[in-house]
Amino acid sequence: MDRVPVLKIGDILLVSIQIDLDDQTALQLQEDLSDRIVETGAHGVVIDISALEIVDSFIGRMLSTIAAVSRVLDAETVVVGMRPAVAITLVELGLSLNGVRTALNVDKALDILAAAKQVHGVGMLTVVEDAGA
Amino acid sequence: MDRVPVLKIGDILLVSIQIDLDDQTALQLQEDLSDRIVETGAHGVVIDISALEIVDSFIGRMLSTIAAVSRVLDAETVVVGMRPAVAITLVELGLSLNGVRTALNVDKALDILAAAKQVHGVGMLTVVEDAGA
Repeated sequence: MDRVPVLKIGDILLVSIQIDLDDQTALQLQEDLSDRIVETGAHGVVIDISALEIVDSFIGRMLSTIAAVSRVLDAETVVVGMRPAVAITLVELGLSLNGVRTALNVDKALDILAAAKQVHGVGMLTVVEDAGA
Repeated sequence: MDRVPVLKIGDILLVSIQIDLDDQTALQLQEDLSDRIVETGAHGVVIDISALEIVDSFIGRMLSTIAAVSRVLDAETVVVGMRPAVAITLVELGLSLNGVRTALNVDKALDILAAAKQVHGVGMLTVVEDAGA
């Protein structure tokens, strides 16, 4: 079975999704990620989707679930590398990536996570901002 | 065509290889990586192979080539996440990953690259050490 590697960089976990995710792989990724958050005490998760040409409702829901689970484990999730065409399709499909923050690239995501770590409670506030349609 | 994303983290480039690389994809990765090194002025490249169950002579050669090209562009390459079974196979096959440094995980690779950046010339010295059979 294919498995998406979870990389630890300082107190951040980085996941680069490059393979087609089926139910099993997506579940495995959620599990691996939660395990690693607990194990490492990571305060942030960065998910790179620059290799994905399509983000459908399945992947959208998976990203939302990962963000929700991570938040419960006190880690903020930022999705990076979304292609312009993917962003357009997401909006056209009416998918909102609930509770998922986005950034253009990994560096910006790390800035966001560093800022969120400094200010207690910022994480929840920014989620509310992003959820607006 | 599949493409392996190159992620910029500070002044390091990170590549996580998760797909089966054919000639075309490998060449594309080499090109992308060289372009990004020049474009960003990155001083280090980290290549994660934790998703790879097999490293054959083709991938071994690709890693060596990437390391050699990066070195000419003044960037050190560190390969991380090698599985124990892969290490055993490499040795059994007599593949030496010429000029390629390895580290257990990304954090350790970043330490190595930070140290190499501090001491001028360390990059070349470590290559000689690693090249020993």
